Amino acid sequence: MADIFDRLVKNYGPIGQHRERAHGYFAFPKLEGEISTRMKFRGKEMIVWSLNNYLGLANHPEVRKADADGAAEYGLALPMGARMMSGNSNLHEQLEAELAAFEQKEDAILLNFGYQGIMSTIDAICGRHDVIVYDAECHACIIDGMRMAPSQRFVYKHNNIDDLEKQLQRAQVIIDKQGQGGILVITEGVFGMAGDQGKLKEIVDLKDKYQFRLLVDDAHGFGTLGATGAGAGEEQGCQDGIDLYFSTFAKSMASIGAFLAGDRIIIDYIRYNIRSQIFAKSLPMPFVVGNLKRLELLRNHPEYKAKLWENALKLQNGLKERGFDIGTTDSVVTPVYMKGGVEEATAMVMDIRENYNIFCSIVVYPVIPKGHIIYRLIPSAVHTDEDIELTLKAFTETKLKLDAGAYKVDAIPDMADIR
Amino acid sequence: MADIFDRLVKNYGPIGQHRERAHGYFAFPKLEGEISTRMKFRGKEMIVWSLNNYLGLANHPEVRKADADGAAEYGLALPMGARMMSGNSNLHEQLEAELAAFEQKEDAILLNFGYQGIMSTIDAICGRHDVIVYDAECHACIIDGMRMAPSQRFVYKHNNIDDLEKQLQRAQVIIDKQGQGGILVITEGVFGMAGDQGKLKEIVDLKDKYQFRLLVDDAHGFGTLGATGAGAGEEQGCQDGIDLYFSTFAKSMASIGAFLAGDRIIIDYIRYNIRSQIFAKSLPMPFVVGNLKRLELLRNHPEYKAKLWENALKLQNGLKERGFDIGTTDSVVTPVYMKGGVEEATAMVMDIRENYNIFCSIVVYPVIPKGHIIYRLIPSAVHTDEDIELTLKAFTETKLKLDAGAYKVDAIPDMADIR
Repeated sequence: MADIFDRLVKNYGPIGQHRERAHGYFAFPKLEGEISTRMKFRGKEMIVWSLNNYLGLANHPEVRKADADGAAEYGLALPMGARMMSGNSNLHEQLEAELAAFEQKEDAILLNFGYQGIMSTIDAICGRHDVIVYDAECHACIIDGMRMAPSQRFVYKHNNIDDLEKQLQRAQVIIDKQGQGGILVITEGVFGMAGDQGKLKEIVDLKDKYQFRLLVDDAHGFGTLGATGAGAGEEQGCQDGIDLYFSTFAKSMASIGAFLAGDRIIIDYIRYNIRSQIFAKSLPMPFVVGNLKRLELLRNHPEYKAKLWENALKLQNGLKERGFDIGTTDSVVTPVYMKGGVEEATAMVMDIRENYNIFCSIVVYPVIPKGHIIYRLIPSAVHTDEDIELTLKAFTETKLKLDAGAYKVDAIPDMADIR
Repeated sequence: MADIFDRLVKNYGPIGQHRERAHGYFAFPKLEGEISTRMKFRGKEMIVWSLNNYLGLANHPEVRKADADGAAEYGLALPMGARMMSGNSNLHEQLEAELAAFEQKEDAILLNFGYQGIMSTIDAICGRHDVIVYDAECHACIIDGMRMAPSQRFVYKHNNIDDLEKQLQRAQVIIDKQGQGGILVITEGVFGMAGDQGKLKEIVDLKDKYQFRLLVDDAHGFGTLGATGAGAGEEQGCQDGIDLYFSTFAKSMASIGAFLAGDRIIIDYIRYNIRSQIFAKSLPMPFVVGNLKRLELLRNHPEYKAKLWENALKLQNGLKERGFDIGTTDSVVTPVYMKGGVEEATAMVMDIRENYNIFCSIVVYPVIPKGHIIYRLIPSAVHTDEDIELTLKAFTETKLKLDAGAYKVDAIPDMADIR
């Protein structure tokens, strides 16, 4: 007999194995002060590129006032209970109606948290005779939703429409053989790591050849893409072809919670059958009020999105002009691809933080292949030209050091050295 | 080829099938006004027995002040990003430390939402060689967590220790055969429907005979049971034997979020490997501040728990003296078991709401067997003697009507009639 914990404590996992050195610096760092492009990390002011505060709403005075007023008026407890039992309100319904209208859908439901919201959506829809066909780079919440659902699933190569067709054909064979079931295609509006948009238009066009429904997680597209900010479907002119449009409030909306929009007939089904909402507490009222204000600002101030894109293009063009590889992004998400080992990446991030006062996220092996490093920069409407220029300068100088082997160290530096 | 939505819209599910009549009244009702034992439903003041505001903290003046101050100081956006990436703070760590100390455990982690928090906990721990042995009446969030995990699972009859032993023996055979893996037992501190405590002491005692770890979801026990309010483990004198103690903040704490407490070595593993926390936003700061205040009140005011129990016993004894069957509850959760069809139950609830101004939850077929009705009353520290007396009177009178066949109708009444 073995202890179920034995296996776990023998291997703390890809990030956990480094926890003694990494904790508080690379993992679980503390950014202090108000949400801004300048925040304190270990007592020093840094230019911050790690927050999905795309439109700058997190610290917008009207948002801060709505957040404060909402909590003062309602407290954080209201409403108590699940939406279906005792957690409904006129304001919840108003936010749903406004989100549905904004996304040009008949109806929408609020979700108390994005992660469990989309998981349970997939679970509510997909039965054992159904087949899910999904993009290989879908977010963890989609993967976890599929892990719950009893459906078969076929993955297609990331944004590869030929492979998607192949998988649709495979799925169709199964459905035909069973004589029942249907196909759900799942992809994202914007892939959060590489910043490339899902090929929604091309996927929707396949509806002429194959029968399927399309669920799109547009976490990073909502508020940042499309003429009105309605997201990747609007941007690509195929919003009608998205059967279920999902977005979290955790990015552009600088909040928590999420929503799902679509035809009334199916939203109503989900409303009455989505486990994580039926069996868990409703979105707290101050978030409903705060999200109504955020949505109002997002709709009425296209200049925020314009400024976001101005900053994003300044950053992206600046990087490209300096010879950096930013991959295939066609959103504001800005990855910077470099080559190097985990130890080099670690030393380089420390140099960027300690000597250039720039805080950004980094992705290394085992999340991506060995020898590769991705810096991930998230521009916002509130970054300044100075923020961008200092960052371009820091990247240029540290890249020279990287190429010259200056970060080659035998081991990951001990955090204790800089404490 | 079929449309994946076809199956769904043909059958809207156990509650959804009644949605046209039930919506807004039996499902998705709106309770208006501040959280209290008296709230408005459709414009009329009702005595409310549906909210898990056990200790009355939801509308406590110090809680309301902490909620308002926290939102004013931090806004609802802070911190942005997942805890591991950019969502950590000293206050998050302080709340974890206080919860760990309160539960007499080495360490604790905050979870951004209870439902996805415990789901992902199960997923993080349980591998394909492990076996989960769980109580048949575990909450939906536990079931959903097990549906994600690749482990085998054996269910034991609700609170039946003989059957638990049988299942442990079956599990042990599998582990022995494999030569690897371990056993996780999952149960609840208090089962939220029937109100009976999980037999934690007897389960912990089985550790002398079998090797397993124990995860307890104490959503309804936290704050309501044990000398200090630390929950069902403290109440039964077996807190040490609970390896992972979980509670949501959605009940006694009148908030959202949750926590998991246990030995540092395993909490640290979970901290670095729990998907719903690594890939989703951290608990917003006003909830951290608000929960610190709630925990302080819960610890320092044992009179709230005393008053809760005084009210619960007054209600439970009053029901028993009047001949009602309240089953085997040994918590404050108070079910009232009656016999009748769905139509009768519906007519009776309408009578109780419309003519006695009492709002409580009701459970009928298909959640429980046909012909049975459960009213579920949740007492709190803030209910008054008058609330209890009026409720006992209403139950006595409506029960007489039920027994006399007064609620026998051919079909569920049309809500339009009372609109």
